[in-house]
Amino acid sequence: MNYCSQCGHFPLEYRIPAGDTRERFVCPSCGTIHYQNPRNVVGTVPVWEDKVLLCKRAIEPRAGYWTLPAGYMELSETTAECAARETREESGAEVELVQLFSLQNVPHVSQVHLFYLARMRSPAFSAGEESLEVRLFEEDEIPWGEIAFTTVSQTLRHYFQDRRNGVFGMHTGDVVRPIFDERDPLLPGLPPAPVDVDQ
Amino acid sequence: MNYCSQCGHFPLEYRIPAGDTRERFVCPSCGTIHYQNPRNVVGTVPVWEDKVLLCKRAIEPRAGYWTLPAGYMELSETTAECAARETREESGAEVELVQLFSLQNVPHVSQVHLFYLARMRSPAFSAGEESLEVRLFEEDEIPWGEIAFTTVSQTLRHYFQDRRNGVFGMHTGDVVRPIFDERDPLLPGLPPAPVDVDQ
Repeated sequence: MNYCSQCGHFPLEYRIPAGDTRERFVCPSCGTIHYQNPRNVVGTVPVWEDKVLLCKRAIEPRAGYWTLPAGYMELSETTAECAARETREESGAEVELVQLFSLQNVPHVSQVHLFYLARMRSPAFSAGEESLEVRLFEEDEIPWGEIAFTTVSQTLRHYFQDRRNGVFGMHTGDVVRPIFDERDPLLPGLPPAPVDVDQ
Repeated sequence: MNYCSQCGHFPLEYRIPAGDTRERFVCPSCGTIHYQNPRNVVGTVPVWEDKVLLCKRAIEPRAGYWTLPAGYMELSETTAECAARETREESGAEVELVQLFSLQNVPHVSQVHLFYLARMRSPAFSAGEESLEVRLFEEDEIPWGEIAFTTVSQTLRHYFQDRRNGVFGMHTGDVVRPIFDERDPLLPGLPPAPVDVDQ
């Protein structure tokens, strides 16, 4: 961020505004504070009978690796609408959402990944523009070594575990990339962060 | 958004970029696409014994109305960290997060509101800069007619209902402000949107 998107002034200052506690991009000319916030990536675990639908990514990051259909939430959209839309766009599948199933923070890229459990309305699917291939996988066919993102492998693990237990819960967690985790060790409430093995 | 924050060009175009399906602010000079996405507002339901902690808002919107402590998620932060931080800043309470409890979409302002159930570590609290007053409320003392936001009243209703049932779940929903809801009526998966009575 170089120029003020409001008035065009250059350069912006990077400082703590009055009454705030964090550094922001601030325009010294018009006073606009340019807040930046994390983004939500929302998708589904699309299920048909005992199989899960995965997409082989056609685009970076992680082109050629398998993922659950998901993407950035748009303005004026709900998480449920985003989940169904991204599933349709990337996998060609029409789904009925069952429940919100996982929320995982990826703070080193300022993202929150959310996945809904979803029933496919039919076994029809087809690769969208961002997918090289789309395929239904039984549990023992899941290509664990070729999953694109840790949040996806964690969500799949929770899905198969819950299916064995016969109860689907809501799973929260963090994916931590830095070797030295500088976040406040006193903050409680989430399960231990899984080791980031895939990203 | 008037000027390109990357190169300073004016004016930006508002059009559908190649390979996309939605209108974006695009710079005709440097080609930067300025994506805009919903923001997360994250907070807690802070509980001490049989009471819930509410904050009377010192700032707009809804100054003078009561709310659960919550605020915008920051870059590099997790939802849990944001929930604990906002609770500390607005109510002076230190909390232990118990579980993620509600996620509510507010698409007409492109926000997602998330609340964690939280145990107060002590009955200590004090009004932060954004609060006029902070107070513990028994269920029959909750000022239902003076709650700042529908997502807060919905979350409080779910809390007291679950407490009566002895089981705390995860609640998802939408708050719909427009009289004419233009969202896709075929999209399933969430409970019927509550009528927006407070906002």
